[in-house]
This record gives sequence, C-alpha cells and structure tokens, in this order.
Amino acid sequence: MAGIRDRVAIIGVGCTKFGELWEKDQEDLLVEATHEAMEDAGVSPQDIDAIWVSAYYDFTGQSGGTATEPLALFGKPATRVENFCASGMDAFRNACFAVASGVYDIVLVCGVEKLLDQGSRGLPIQPQHPSFIGASAPGIFALAASRAFYEWGWTKEDLARVAVKNHRNGAAHPKAHFRRPVTLEDVLNAPMIAWPLGRLDCCAVSDGAAAVIVTRPEIAKTTRHKDDYILVKANALAVESIQPYYRSGYNWLGFPATRAAAKMAYEEAGIRDPQEEIDFAEVHDCFTSTELFNIGDLGLVDDPKDAPRFVADGLADIEGKVPINPSGGLKCFGHPIGATGCRMIYEVTKQLQGRADGLQVRNPRVGLAHNLGGPGAVASVTILARRD
Amino acid sequence: MAGIRDRVAIIGVGCTKFGELWEKDQEDLLVEATHEAMEDAGVSPQDIDAIWVSAYYDFTGQSGGTATEPLALFGKPATRVENFCASGMDAFRNACFAVASGVYDIVLVCGVEKLLDQGSRGLPIQPQHPSFIGASAPGIFALAASRAFYEWGWTKEDLARVAVKNHRNGAAHPKAHFRRPVTLEDVLNAPMIAWPLGRLDCCAVSDGAAAVIVTRPEIAKTTRHKDDYILVKANALAVESIQPYYRSGYNWLGFPATRAAAKMAYEEAGIRDPQEEIDFAEVHDCFTSTELFNIGDLGLVDDPKDAPRFVADGLADIEGKVPINPSGGLKCFGHPIGATGCRMIYEVTKQLQGRADGLQVRNPRVGLAHNLGGPGAVASVTILARRD
Repeated sequence: MAGIRDRVAIIGVGCTKFGELWEKDQEDLLVEATHEAMEDAGVSPQDIDAIWVSAYYDFTGQSGGTATEPLALFGKPATRVENFCASGMDAFRNACFAVASGVYDIVLVCGVEKLLDQGSRGLPIQPQHPSFIGASAPGIFALAASRAFYEWGWTKEDLARVAVKNHRNGAAHPKAHFRRPVTLEDVLNAPMIAWPLGRLDCCAVSDGAAAVIVTRPEIAKTTRHKDDYILVKANALAVESIQPYYRSGYNWLGFPATRAAAKMAYEEAGIRDPQEEIDFAEVHDCFTSTELFNIGDLGLVDDPKDAPRFVADGLADIEGKVPINPSGGLKCFGHPIGATGCRMIYEVTKQLQGRADGLQVRNPRVGLAHNLGGPGAVASVTILARRD
Repeated sequence: MAGIRDRVAIIGVGCTKFGELWEKDQEDLLVEATHEAMEDAGVSPQDIDAIWVSAYYDFTGQSGGTATEPLALFGKPATRVENFCASGMDAFRNACFAVASGVYDIVLVCGVEKLLDQGSRGLPIQPQHPSFIGASAPGIFALAASRAFYEWGWTKEDLARVAVKNHRNGAAHPKAHFRRPVTLEDVLNAPMIAWPLGRLDCCAVSDGAAAVIVTRPEIAKTTRHKDDYILVKANALAVESIQPYYRSGYNWLGFPATRAAAKMAYEEAGIRDPQEEIDFAEVHDCFTSTELFNIGDLGLVDDPKDAPRFVADGLADIEGKVPINPSGGLKCFGHPIGATGCRMIYEVTKQLQGRADGLQVRNPRVGLAHNLGGPGAVASVTILARRD
C-alpha cells in the first residue's frame, strides 16, 4: 500500500467564526467558509472538479446536495460523508484519495453544523450504545476520566490545566466561540456536569463551518500558494466498536481508535518518534480529560498516565515542546460536528504557513490534526507538513 | 484528469435475496452479502484494508461502524457515504478512488437497507424540496411522466411494456423480490397510485443488501477470479439541484443529473457511441417512466422521446440490442436505498462473467449501471467491462 504521502497539497482554507450564530443558517455558513477557501486558493467555483461535504445532524436531504445546493455548483460530483464526530476529517480523507488517484484536479472539502438548531437532540446512536440508554456525552466520557483518576491518580486540577491552557490560546483567536482566559479556580469551581467533568471541562454547543481546497503538488506549484502550499503526509482513519465500553478487554483508559489511527498515520508519514517529529497538534478536546487521553494515545508522552505532567510542565503550551490546541481547541471553538475536522485542517495549515489567526506556533514544520468520534469509536489522524 | 479507467478491478460480489425480510435485521443482511462477496473473491475479513458502506435510512449511528460493527472488523478504516438513492453506487465510487490511489489493496463496499422497517417515513428532504410539502415519490415522478405524455405522446401502454419486460426478467432471478411475469393488462388495470403511474409502474418497498470487493488489476491477477475479474472503465457522479422542478429552464423531461453523469462516464471510458458500445445496462427504474427517461438520458436512443419504441421493438429485451435491466430491475428487486447501487454492480459483474443468477445476456463485454436519486438530483453512472 502506497500511502497518501506527499501526493496531495492544500492550497486554500476557510473558516467562519464559530459561536451561537442564530442569524445565519447552515447554507450561509457553508458559503462563507467555502468562498474564503476558494479566495485563499485563488480558484473560482467553476474550477472545482468535485466536492466532499460533512454535516452530521442535517437530516433533511443526505447527499452531496448539502454543499452543491447553497453553492449553486450544479452538475458536478459531490459526496456526503458520515463518521460520527470525525465526519469532517473523513470528508477530507476521501477527497485526498480522489486527488491522489488523479481523477480530479481541484477538490473542495467542507464541513458545517448548525448545532444550536438541534436543541437537546442526542447523538443518533445504535441501540447497543450506552448513550441509547440515557447516558449523555459528558456522562460517557466521565466514566473514562474517573477511571484515570482511580488507576493513574489524575486529579481535577490536571483536567483544569487543560482548560486554562486552551482558553489562554483561544482568547487570542478571532474566530473562536469563547475568547476569554479562565483561571484554575474558575474551572474547579464551575458547576458539575458529570463528575469529574465540570462545565469548563466540557466543550460547548456551537455553530460553524470550515473548508479546504486540495489538489496535487504539481498543480499547487502553479497557484497563489505556490511557495507555501501544505503537503498531506498521512491521512488515517480507524473505526473501533461503537460500544467500546462493552468490549471485553477495554480498560477505559484512552481510546483504541486513536491509537490505531496514529499508528497508521505515523507509518504512512514515516514518523518514528512523534515526540520529536510532531511540532504541534490540534486534538479532539471535547472534554479536558479527552485531551489528556489523546496526548497519551498519540504517543506524545512515553507513558499515557503522564499526560497531565506534560501539560503541567508547560510542554503543551504555545511556546512548549509540542503545543497542543494552539487555536484553543474544541474548548474554545465548540464542536459543530460536521465542521470540526475541517476546522482543525484549517488551523494546522495556517500555523504551518506562519499565518495563524490567533497565537502562532514558532516555525512549525510538521503538524498533526486528530478528530475523535463515537465516543472513542472513530478516530482520524492527519499529518500535514511544509514543503521545505 | 486521469479517470479511473482500468485501474480498479472487481474480484468478488455478493447479494442477499431482496424482499420483505422481516425475520432479518440490517446487520444480518450486511453480514450475508459481504460474506458472499468475500467468499466469491477468496478473501477473508482480515484481508480487507478498508470499507465503504451506504445505509440511507439508518439514523442510529451514522459512521463506518454501520459496517464494521456487524462484521466485527475493528481498527480498520470505514466510511459511510450518503447520496440519496444513489448512495450505494457512490460508496463504490469512493472505494474505487482509494484503490486507484494505491493507498489500500483490498477494499469492501457494501450497501444495505431495511426499508420495510421505516414504515411510512418519507424521504428525508430539504424544506425547499417538493416532497417537503407533501408530494410523494410517485407524485413527483408522475409529474415528469405526464409531461412526456403531453410533449412526446407517451402512453400508459408505453410505460406498461417496461413493467412487462422487467417482470419477465425478474421472474427468472432467484434473488428478486417479485418473481412473477405480468401482462400488459395486469399493469394497465392495476390500481392507480399517481396518474399515470399505477401500482405495477412503481417499484416496491423491499429489504436487501449487496457487496463488492475491489482491488487493483495487478492484485486481481493473483486471486480466484484471475481469469475473469471485471475492470472499472468509468465511475461518474453528478449532483444537480435537489429541487430540479424549481430550476428555471427545466423542461420536466428526463433528468439532467443522468445526462451529466453519462457524459462524464462515456468520456472516462472512451465510449463514443453508447448505442453500439454498451452491451447491456442495469438502470434505475424506480418507476416505469423513469426507465424510459433513463434510456434517453443515457443516449441509448437518438431522440429521448423514442425510448418507448426502443422497448416496444424488443431492443431492451434480454435478447435485444441493449438489454435493459436483465435482473428485473428495481421493478422486481424493490429499492432498499443503500443497497440498490451495489446490487446493480453485483448484477453487471455477474452478467459480464457469464454467471448471471437469472437470465444471462448473450456474451456481453461492456455493461453499464445507473443509479438515480433525489429525485433526479443525483445520478451515478458506472461502466464495467471484461478484460479481454
């Protein structure tokens, strides 16, 4: 198997402001993000050969039309992809295959979600799934977090430091939903949602959209970003059981799908030592505890139980060894499901190009994006890099 | 753009019996079809590198887990694709890109639907769509049919001949839902659903699943079907407006998405004269009138209004110039949405290999599969061929 390595290039990215966007509908957000990406790439709608789109909760017409209709891009191929909370990054992955196969030249990927319009609707989920019997997302993730408290000695303070770090980053990002720093005391004193997860340990319900334009490197060399297009080094997906907590052998500590996807991605990208070779990462911090698990599952620490120390020692800070969620992450952007994976690709691309909207990581060469869904059932790991 | 031509091979296919399968659930059907395909290919579940799945109406957990969970194929990449009634063929298309890109060697595509379990639930559809204000699928397709009656002089008999032909074919197919011939009088005297479409002009509500194993030709040469693997010549998708009837300039005669996808597919396959080069076709006959429109939209007649004569003259019969729906089509299999596109690939593959379950087309070399959704908003056209 050949891997996608170096055969796909990102030449444009776009992203709306995330937040409670009551005055805009899904179509507005999709148009805004995709046109920003096309403008960034210097391509027009007519240049787009094909489209991949994700929009998890929009049950009114599941087809590529979710993108083509608001964009009035008729007669072209357009596919809608679904993979729980990792739908956005899987749309990107499928688009990369089509580009790498040589079938299309310029492809648009976009993800959108008007999550606030969903009210209190739960995740659509199989009857075998714990959510089906009433467990909420915080409730399920809290089971894993409390297991780490018991097995590994993690504390509420360990979790809170993730929120403090991510809010410090997000406060500087003009497109973030929440742009205010929080203190350790704020997080520790926030109302409890599902022990040990307080309100500031949880990501919010937000609306948003993001978009990416991909092509092959030889075409990228002829575009506006000819000097700073970004290469896709790896693009891995792993689907574990939708009922991870029911599978025998599951120890409740971290997410096997992330570990499987990371292993594939590192092999594909030729990365032997992620701690040294990954310069920064946008990871799926739907809860502060999830970010700590991700740091372990992605191999950014030797022993997963030491992830809290990695954060406490400042290694995940914007000036640290491997900045984690320089954008502020889901903690500050919320998690409009279809959009999140594309928003991460947007952020990693702009960081690598040295034009981050918020805090800029210092001279990064290789960035990782990690999108988790299910919970824990689906994980995407994408590795992007500068050309030089 | 390179096209997929000759870079992807089909090495195994599987299909359940279609029908009112109350005693089986979605998971049972998926397992049955995929294991038949793997057995046909001579591969085991562990040989599968990645999976694409379609299941349109299953809203309980939209992810690749729809396939990996019942198959217990954990830790692998799996993507769920949505494209209205063409979801199954678009899952196949995305899998072909991944194989052509060289990223995976052996890929499983599967589609499934327990349509009977949906009761009277309508198609999930955007508020702009005519269905949203109460129009049923027969009601919408009847508008186009009656337009052809008015503009082109089509008659109820013209439509009925399609049903008679397809039921003659389906009666011989052991996997069809309906296995009985019908007469012209049966069709003309059937209860009216939406004029001019009577009950025997409409496809039924059925359950079913189908699966396909794809790989690259160099690998196909080492498999059980090394002497008769099937090549993918083209694999096109076009998305038109979800509200075709509202777009100015739409004349209600045929489906622009089919014409756009057919144009792309013929270019990709290098087909200049489909009437001479396509040996047979499985087309989306959700209604008898739709099959007539498809014959025109696919360029199998010079003038689309002459499609009824093509059928009346026996040219679409199993022994005719271009047999249409040798399986019996949606008329005899029903239309379990996620499964239909994969079922068509199954049928065209087995016909080309000379091992059709039902009536065998005489020595075909090139076959076409056409999947329509939306209605009329999405069309997939796949062209398959024998190697020799």
